[in-house]
Amino acid sequence: VSRIHIVGTGLIGGSLGLALTQAGHEVTLADQSPTAAALARDLGAGRLAAPGDRPEVVVVSTPPDVTAGLVVRALADFPEAVVTDVASVKGAVLRDVVAAGADTTRYVGAHPMAGRERSGVVAARADLFEGRAFVVVPSPDSSAEAVAAVERLGRDIRSTVVRLDPADHDAAVAAVSHVPQLAASLVAARLEALGEEAVGLAGQGIRDVTRIAASDPGLWTQILAANAPAVRAVLRDLATDLQDVVAALDSLADESDPLAEGSRGVIARLISAGNAGQARLPGKHGGASTSYATVTVLVPDRPGELGRLFNDVGAAGVNLEDLRLEHGLGQPFGLAEIMVIPSVAGHLAEALEQRGWTLHG
Amino acid sequence: VSRIHIVGTGLIGGSLGLALTQAGHEVTLADQSPTAAALARDLGAGRLAAPGDRPEVVVVSTPPDVTAGLVVRALADFPEAVVTDVASVKGAVLRDVVAAGADTTRYVGAHPMAGRERSGVVAARADLFEGRAFVVVPSPDSSAEAVAAVERLGRDIRSTVVRLDPADHDAAVAAVSHVPQLAASLVAARLEALGEEAVGLAGQGIRDVTRIAASDPGLWTQILAANAPAVRAVLRDLATDLQDVVAALDSLADESDPLAEGSRGVIARLISAGNAGQARLPGKHGGASTSYATVTVLVPDRPGELGRLFNDVGAAGVNLEDLRLEHGLGQPFGLAEIMVIPSVAGHLAEALEQRGWTLHG
Repeated sequence: VSRIHIVGTGLIGGSLGLALTQAGHEVTLADQSPTAAALARDLGAGRLAAPGDRPEVVVVSTPPDVTAGLVVRALADFPEAVVTDVASVKGAVLRDVVAAGADTTRYVGAHPMAGRERSGVVAARADLFEGRAFVVVPSPDSSAEAVAAVERLGRDIRSTVVRLDPADHDAAVAAVSHVPQLAASLVAARLEALGEEAVGLAGQGIRDVTRIAASDPGLWTQILAANAPAVRAVLRDLATDLQDVVAALDSLADESDPLAEGSRGVIARLISAGNAGQARLPGKHGGASTSYATVTVLVPDRPGELGRLFNDVGAAGVNLEDLRLEHGLGQPFGLAEIMVIPSVAGHLAEALEQRGWTLHG
Repeated sequence: VSRIHIVGTGLIGGSLGLALTQAGHEVTLADQSPTAAALARDLGAGRLAAPGDRPEVVVVSTPPDVTAGLVVRALADFPEAVVTDVASVKGAVLRDVVAAGADTTRYVGAHPMAGRERSGVVAARADLFEGRAFVVVPSPDSSAEAVAAVERLGRDIRSTVVRLDPADHDAAVAAVSHVPQLAASLVAARLEALGEEAVGLAGQGIRDVTRIAASDPGLWTQILAANAPAVRAVLRDLATDLQDVVAALDSLADESDPLAEGSRGVIARLISAGNAGQARLPGKHGGASTSYATVTVLVPDRPGELGRLFNDVGAAGVNLEDLRLEHGLGQPFGLAEIMVIPSVAGHLAEALEQRGWTLHG
């Protein structure tokens, strides 16, 4: 049992309070808004902090632009405590903490890779971090004990602990999170001025590419600004490739261009590089990407039909690995693409057809 | 009943043959490869073409780089027939057909918005086009009868017929298909050189953004080259926005820059434009985008569990609108995010908890 103090009781802070309380720790709560802190307490995230509390670990869980200041204050207010924070960019926080002359032997940054579309403590869940990565980011001066305490916290909330230094963390999230966010916005922004009929031709591809373009501009501006150097580095590489493709398309649009043959090579190489990069994404269970076979089934659009379908999949003894639902254009049915390991696809297709399902291309 | 001749019996040609045969038409088949044509026949896509056939409609269904030549030949070989093609870029085909001096009163382009990951006639399905958009693209000289014949063909394969002129079609697919493809490849290409731990931080966002980056380089180089002018136009707008973002990040990375405040505005405006564009994508059933509520359920990773879950959803009288499956990092369970209309989400959550399911943040 440890004494853990949480500063900032929003979605992440509230969820940490719930998870750590359930793990048996003694959790205290503080928030700029006394109402938010009281609400977190009422939801079971811990008790309100009081003068004289002596936490062993302090977690700063606030918007990124005030994180460093609150880390510095916590290091001063609790001179025996290990202090961590959960901001999604780590280099900028550490730089500001060091610049303030704080004791960084007791500071260890963290980044729980979890979130929800909703924010605020009412959306908090004790199991928010279960099975997610929890990145522990020591400063160059962090003591081994401080690092161990923060890693223990990650395991207590049932996350998978990963250790990275600040630069590697920020470069990683720039590539796997911040630049994809910008790319989705850049593609989606093209749709703003498009005609109604043109938008009507949109298929599953652009839906997938732009899903995260629905994100909050205020929060994302803070995140991107805080990680500007790392995002800029990845974005410049991307811009270089983009300029090459635009030049290749210029050459191909002008048919008499003797470079047109080489231009096809530029495009083919980019698509191939994309193949290789995409294949590196971890597949199911964090393991290597796996190729599944797809069985596509026509599903009438009414309650219970999907249940009946998945019941029949289960009855066939087949484990569904992944699933995509697609809805027809003005049709009273949808398509369920059931992904399974290739060796059982034939058996599954047969079993479903026997049970009266219509398989679909 | 019409006499319809299909040139090229791959996935699309084969599927057209199956669908049109089932619709009661008399379908004849030809392919550069006699084996492919015979296979399509054996699968029920029609009979082999013979000298003296007098088709009323000819569909050229071949790779884009040979489409125009085969359209010109079909117009000459069958002087009474309406000729169409299914290439995914329409301006370039029409330009080459006109340049060859062919009779374009009888030519009407088309683009069925359907496909599969697999290619070849063995992957063909009679229902491939059901509920999908079928874009009819008349030339300026197409006769009303020719346009009507191709629109009828789209309805016969149970597609939703949309009419666009070649430039509008090519601009639309550049924005909703070709540029998203390139953006996915550009983002995925960044992963090629990333460290193993960094790739391990990838979440659902980048998975969605890069899913279509797994596409075939050869085919996509042909498509992008054929639509170079339209793709280039959209890509240049995107590159301009990208340069603005890079400049804003440069300014933000240098904290002393007096423009840094304005730079946050540049980023916020792009994310907002992405919000607006993304919201224009048609939602379920081709209608306006709808906001669903999400109920997230922990699902043990073994056969039958998803069936049991969806059975319980059906038993609660709730219609599932969309679904996303997520797998934990090294955990023997996954998360099912069930999207439903907001008014039934509370009832569903209650019903599932009563039946012993664990809901999850």
